[in-house]
Amino acid sequence: MKFGGTSVADLDRINHVADLVAEQARTSTGGVAVIVSAMAGETNRLVGLANGAAGSALVGEAFDDEYDVIVASGEQVTSGLLALALRRRGFRARSWLGWQMPMITNHVHGKARIEDIEGNGFPEAIASGEIAVVAGFQGRTEDGRITTLGRGGSDTSAVAVAAALNAARCDIYTDVDGVYTTDPRIVPKARRIDRISYEEMLEMASLGAKVLQTRSVELAMNHGVPIRVLSSFVDTGDQQNSGTLVCDEDEIMEKQVVSGIAYSRDEAKISLLGVSNHPGIAADIFSRLAAANINVDMIVQADSRGPETANMVFTCTERDSELAVSVLTDARDEIGFDRIVVDKDVAKVSVIGVGMRSHTGVAKTMFDALFAKGINIQVISTSEIKISVLIDSSYTELAVRALHSAYGLDTVS
Amino acid sequence: MKFGGTSVADLDRINHVADLVAEQARTSTGGVAVIVSAMAGETNRLVGLANGAAGSALVGEAFDDEYDVIVASGEQVTSGLLALALRRRGFRARSWLGWQMPMITNHVHGKARIEDIEGNGFPEAIASGEIAVVAGFQGRTEDGRITTLGRGGSDTSAVAVAAALNAARCDIYTDVDGVYTTDPRIVPKARRIDRISYEEMLEMASLGAKVLQTRSVELAMNHGVPIRVLSSFVDTGDQQNSGTLVCDEDEIMEKQVVSGIAYSRDEAKISLLGVSNHPGIAADIFSRLAAANINVDMIVQADSRGPETANMVFTCTERDSELAVSVLTDARDEIGFDRIVVDKDVAKVSVIGVGMRSHTGVAKTMFDALFAKGINIQVISTSEIKISVLIDSSYTELAVRALHSAYGLDTVS
Repeated sequence: MKFGGTSVADLDRINHVADLVAEQARTSTGGVAVIVSAMAGETNRLVGLANGAAGSALVGEAFDDEYDVIVASGEQVTSGLLALALRRRGFRARSWLGWQMPMITNHVHGKARIEDIEGNGFPEAIASGEIAVVAGFQGRTEDGRITTLGRGGSDTSAVAVAAALNAARCDIYTDVDGVYTTDPRIVPKARRIDRISYEEMLEMASLGAKVLQTRSVELAMNHGVPIRVLSSFVDTGDQQNSGTLVCDEDEIMEKQVVSGIAYSRDEAKISLLGVSNHPGIAADIFSRLAAANINVDMIVQADSRGPETANMVFTCTERDSELAVSVLTDARDEIGFDRIVVDKDVAKVSVIGVGMRSHTGVAKTMFDALFAKGINIQVISTSEIKISVLIDSSYTELAVRALHSAYGLDTVS
Repeated sequence: MKFGGTSVADLDRINHVADLVAEQARTSTGGVAVIVSAMAGETNRLVGLANGAAGSALVGEAFDDEYDVIVASGEQVTSGLLALALRRRGFRARSWLGWQMPMITNHVHGKARIEDIEGNGFPEAIASGEIAVVAGFQGRTEDGRITTLGRGGSDTSAVAVAAALNAARCDIYTDVDGVYTTDPRIVPKARRIDRISYEEMLEMASLGAKVLQTRSVELAMNHGVPIRVLSSFVDTGDQQNSGTLVCDEDEIMEKQVVSGIAYSRDEAKISLLGVSNHPGIAADIFSRLAAANINVDMIVQADSRGPETANMVFTCTERDSELAVSVLTDARDEIGFDRIVVDKDVAKVSVIGVGMRSHTGVAKTMFDALFAKGINIQVISTSEIKISVLIDSSYTELAVRALHSAYGLDTVS
């Protein structure tokens, strides 16, 4: 069971979490491990202190190890508090910090990757019936320094612990009651999905449906750990709180052709016009962007005035777009192009579903639905289980609603 | 160098501490280790959270291990912050948590005793020129659980680290600029003491001069670590900030007969009247009190109406007095006494000085001075380097001032 920052925001909420864990421990045949985040706001407070001490001008890798020492204290406090709240309810429980299990990570402070859970006495304690309350988000290096896994890293901690314990399931409690076919704020008829495959969830997560951290889904897929996403803001024993199960495709009986519609407004379209077209030009452009750590998403290349020149269009996040322009402008003479145009008023809308692999006509349905609403498609990209289009951002809601209906995802009631 | 909670209360003060440490590191020929407390107020905040989670009705030993996990996070944060502030000033520095050094303690959570500093790489790091910023107040058990040393335990951490490193000196920075001949709030003519012996400091500390934790002085005496008490609320390089050196008696050239006057108002006098006098009666009474964890201080036994009955008078803290009365009342039939009287309006005033060992007339001076002010002495107790009297608490200030003058401790200016 994993509980995020809003689920443990104060003592009232921690007591409610203790009730949920107690209910699970009472009804479970196996042992229970609980992974907790820092109390909401605590990580920001600690980061603020650390920035103040380091001086904002000097923040950088040379400081990250001590950042981790400071910030990891947030989860430490929550794990102790929840252990106390469980003992108060008559359960055996104890906190486990990253260095105690130990959760061994690499040395990349601030965004470390888990390498191993050595589990010195940790699985044995759970097997003995003691509830393990694990401080999420943190680990330690082989040589005994504290590391953190990056924002949202507690999801990853939870899946790693579930994998190490061969757990039947990893329940991620959050402030929503599951994964929806699309954003319910845009489409009130959006439905909660009962089961979704890891691959679909990865596409949903990477496209802005911020329920689970992408890394945690990858890890779960690699280790075959089923994740259940459900709400901590319900009463104990609420049978309606079954959430969404993220699992292997094979365990989903009734596969939808399309499972969900995702969108992202944090997109910028950059067009390089009149690029002198010669072999290796794409490699040249995108290796420069990669060297600047810019994540390029959709890419389209098309002839321009003739076969000698091309237009190269790609998308990246809005934040990265200014850096991308300056990198390319600096190399204008070497690359050779006429001009560069940036458009931030774009949005990416995607339909996702493992059923696409075996069904035809999915793309046609998408293009028809958008055309019927008069929405112009600027860029198209596809993968095995996803079709994404770039459109004018002012049409985002209209497009999402049209697609949600077109694929029969609206609730019937 | 050790800095308490008020010295690291916020980022401004932490930056000032970093300046003081930087100054020391620049001028010192050897290495520097810094021990820090939690930021002022932080420990109370964490204890409040822990009490809330545990439920006040259930606080007890069964919860102390998780209390330690929660509360130790306060020093963890400060150690990271000071390490960052030192790096910002161009120094190599890193935090060391109790479990990292490791500082091994026994299993008594909440008031653990240090057993060993294994110092895996810790002395080597300091020898290499890196400033070690040690989280005070915390250690770990052999089996890897976090412990804390009890309130004020950072002083003890500091002395233990100094002893383990064979440090030339342990500088304890606090909010006063040294140890005074008596409380300056009562006697404005009180003087800062340049040098004081461990034994005298122990008597001062245990009698309510709350500059240093008693255990830290004992530890320093046992390991021959000189402690310097000085203020962190001064500018760097302030030559006046020499503080008070607590050291071996042999290193004090000009010994005062009396070094200081201490007092304590947290006293209660309990009189058992008409105790049936037979061998073993004192052992019976005081073993009952010891079993209830009541610390008895002064004891006087005197015949009452005749040799068959005695009056037994003793003192303890006000807090313990009610428990003492109930323990003794419960055992009244077995002990055999007429009645029990409690007086909380008493204070203990003590004169302290290693010079008493070789000087006579110290007690006479004390009794004369008190008699001259019309102050009645209720109980007297003496040790090699201390004479204490119990008096009516409303005479406390008058007595302290009279004694301070009588032993020539007033400043001459």
